[in-house]
Amino acid sequence: MPEYRALREKHSILEMCSTPELAAQATMQPVERLGVDAAILFSDIVVPLRAMGIALDIKAGVGPVIDDPVRSVADVDRITPLEPELGVGYVLDAIRILVRELDVPLIGFGGAPFTLASYLIEGGPSKDFARTKALMLGEPETWNKLMDRLSESILAYLRAQIDAGARAIQLFDSWAGALAPAEYLTYVAPAVERIFAGLEGHAVPRIHFGVGTGELLHLMGAVGADVVGVDWRVPLSKARERIGKGFAVQGNLDPAICLAPWPIVEEHALEVLRQGGGLGHIFNLGHGVLPATDPDILARLVDLVHSFRP
Amino acid sequence: MPEYRALREKHSILEMCSTPELAAQATMQPVERLGVDAAILFSDIVVPLRAMGIALDIKAGVGPVIDDPVRSVADVDRITPLEPELGVGYVLDAIRILVRELDVPLIGFGGAPFTLASYLIEGGPSKDFARTKALMLGEPETWNKLMDRLSESILAYLRAQIDAGARAIQLFDSWAGALAPAEYLTYVAPAVERIFAGLEGHAVPRIHFGVGTGELLHLMGAVGADVVGVDWRVPLSKARERIGKGFAVQGNLDPAICLAPWPIVEEHALEVLRQGGGLGHIFNLGHGVLPATDPDILARLVDLVHSFRP
Repeated sequence: MPEYRALREKHSILEMCSTPELAAQATMQPVERLGVDAAILFSDIVVPLRAMGIALDIKAGVGPVIDDPVRSVADVDRITPLEPELGVGYVLDAIRILVRELDVPLIGFGGAPFTLASYLIEGGPSKDFARTKALMLGEPETWNKLMDRLSESILAYLRAQIDAGARAIQLFDSWAGALAPAEYLTYVAPAVERIFAGLEGHAVPRIHFGVGTGELLHLMGAVGADVVGVDWRVPLSKARERIGKGFAVQGNLDPAICLAPWPIVEEHALEVLRQGGGLGHIFNLGHGVLPATDPDILARLVDLVHSFRP
Repeated sequence: MPEYRALREKHSILEMCSTPELAAQATMQPVERLGVDAAILFSDIVVPLRAMGIALDIKAGVGPVIDDPVRSVADVDRITPLEPELGVGYVLDAIRILVRELDVPLIGFGGAPFTLASYLIEGGPSKDFARTKALMLGEPETWNKLMDRLSESILAYLRAQIDAGARAIQLFDSWAGALAPAEYLTYVAPAVERIFAGLEGHAVPRIHFGVGTGELLHLMGAVGADVVGVDWRVPLSKARERIGKGFAVQGNLDPAICLAPWPIVEEHALEVLRQGGGLGHIFNLGHGVLPATDPDILARLVDLVHSFRP
């Protein structure tokens, strides 16, 4: 969106994340422009890591880059537990502004331990997660210590967001789909379970998101989520079978489809809506909006979803 | 392997691919070092594209980079059909050397139309295949023309490899897993079917490979393959159910596991062998060997597979 590009011309992503007024403004832009039913906080999953003593930057066209990657137990020890009001008070302030300004509910979020660990260990985005998996399999004690540290801090972070007014939370395990089900179950699921269990009783829906997680769907619900995100690779009706009963699904239009002409977008979106069945379904894209997307296509998409009757 | 690094210090990948003696040498290195049961030709799926009038390079740490990406019907028209002996005679000469020198069968290979098209359209490797999907969905006539051109040329390329002595062929649709099943079926499967059907009667096994293709497995066999490659995300017993009866499977140890200590590698490899069931199973990694892998681990892995009795 041009209004977002205008903001980004003046401010870096991290500057925007750490300035409550700017984060709030960027959060409200798509709500105002598109008419969506909820807002998701403008931030990045690595933001709390900075407050845990990790020097990092978010580089345009690359992603998060960590100055000193975490590769030993000594590296894990230098990660300090997050104290939300002290460390990321600016995020909570942004939430407080948004709760006052918005007419729709605000979704808070955090990164899941595996995905955060992958950035910490690789030093940035990765294609194969080779170092992450090597540490996970080869040094399980170091790995578990890292999972513990991250899950405690992310739980505190999400609780603080709920206290500040977030009405739902989303846990982003964006890259968990790189793991086989057996590895996910052994090395990742326990840390995620602690986070979701720790949010029990806060009365907010817990959304669990990942990409390429077709083989993990049965686990991604069972670890304690209320809603399981599904990417476009798995039709929603098949995803529901894998996840099991008692969960809502979120998804799953391929963001690349939004680059096609409207009749194609419409056809695919209607198929997603039909597959979703109209109940227990949060319609969204299977991953983030691609930069080349025309905002008008997204606005038409929101209207289409609103007009759908199962 | 150090012997491979020594070759690469003196020659670029494209130089090695286009010099029969060097391609043959690189092909034989892992066979001699590891004792595997078959050799796979040292080459790259973009090699035939150069002989089809596409200017490209393979950049270290990046992958194939195309000088002028293909984004219109005029761009498709300037791709000339491959004449294998004329355009890639050096690949066929490498095969002829290898057939004389090797004690094990040689596997030839080519890139599948979707994966080749993704490089041509994006101009290089991609995370989201946004331009590829936009062209596929938005300009189906241009897309189909591109699929036709690629499938005809790849079929000719694979036939020439068989004529030169390749005893099996593998079709690499490495990135097909980025597609939903419905898109794969409509826009990709017909071109792949033409290739496999055109190899009928050549009496060589046809292996169909991709990564992240859990939701496409039923289609990847049905398009005419004899063997379906499976990555580590789907246990082989589950993969067999999805593929259906009458197919062999290939896979599926996660290459990242080979970076862990031997007992971990052994445990995971035995699980793959058990899941594979011992019959109609080609053991290999779910994707390429990672550069940091210790060749001794791979040699032990080959011994383990050879000693396995179901």
